Amino acid sequence: MTPEEASSALDQCRAQIDVLDRQIVALLNERATVVEVIGDVKQKSAMKVYEPRREDLVYANVLGSNAGPLQPDAVRRIYERIIDEMRTLQRDRMAGKGGQS
Amino acid sequence: MTPEEASSALDQCRAQIDVLDRQIVALLNERATVVEVIGDVKQKSAMKVYEPRREDLVYANVLGSNAGPLQPDAVRRIYERIIDEMRTLQRDRMAGKGGQS
Repeated sequence: MTPEEASSALDQCRAQIDVLDRQIVALLNERATVVEVIGDVKQKSAMKVYEPRREDLVYANVLGSNAGPLQPDAVRRIYERIIDEMRTLQRDRMAGKGGQS
Repeated sequence: MTPEEASSALDQCRAQIDVLDRQIVALLNERATVVEVIGDVKQKSAMKVYEPRREDLVYANVLGSNAGPLQPDAVRRIYERIIDEMRTLQRDRMAGKGGQS
């Protein structure tokens, strides 16, 4: 593979990644919107933000649907971060809004 | 909102999240497949795995497309984890395959 061929192949791959990343960010935000709705429901019905049993189900769902090449541990670590950020978003919304919505 | 209404609303939200999560995992794996191709190209042309300039472009792309409700910092932290896992995948593949592919 010549340097020119390598460079052209990388450019193509990176364009694909950029498209995928925008789709991933859009889905993460869709997920965050649903998490906000959940926060509102919990607030109206005085439920807790942190529910470890529900988180187990989230991990079971994502790991069960993981077809690779990402290893299960890698998906789990990525989801730990995603869930942590979603929990922060839900807490901030519940704290800031004080049941106004 | 009665406990029954809250419970039904939460069930609906969680079903939506489960669908979104399966889509997110599928896209993460699509991304990982492209990252593997990049690793192969880099290996054939003796390039480095870690390229900080390219990573800056990845962050610029994802943050530029972030329409919220996730805060930019939250998206950045999620992407730090994603990129770290992808780098590990690329390194493992390059180390394990020794240029066979």
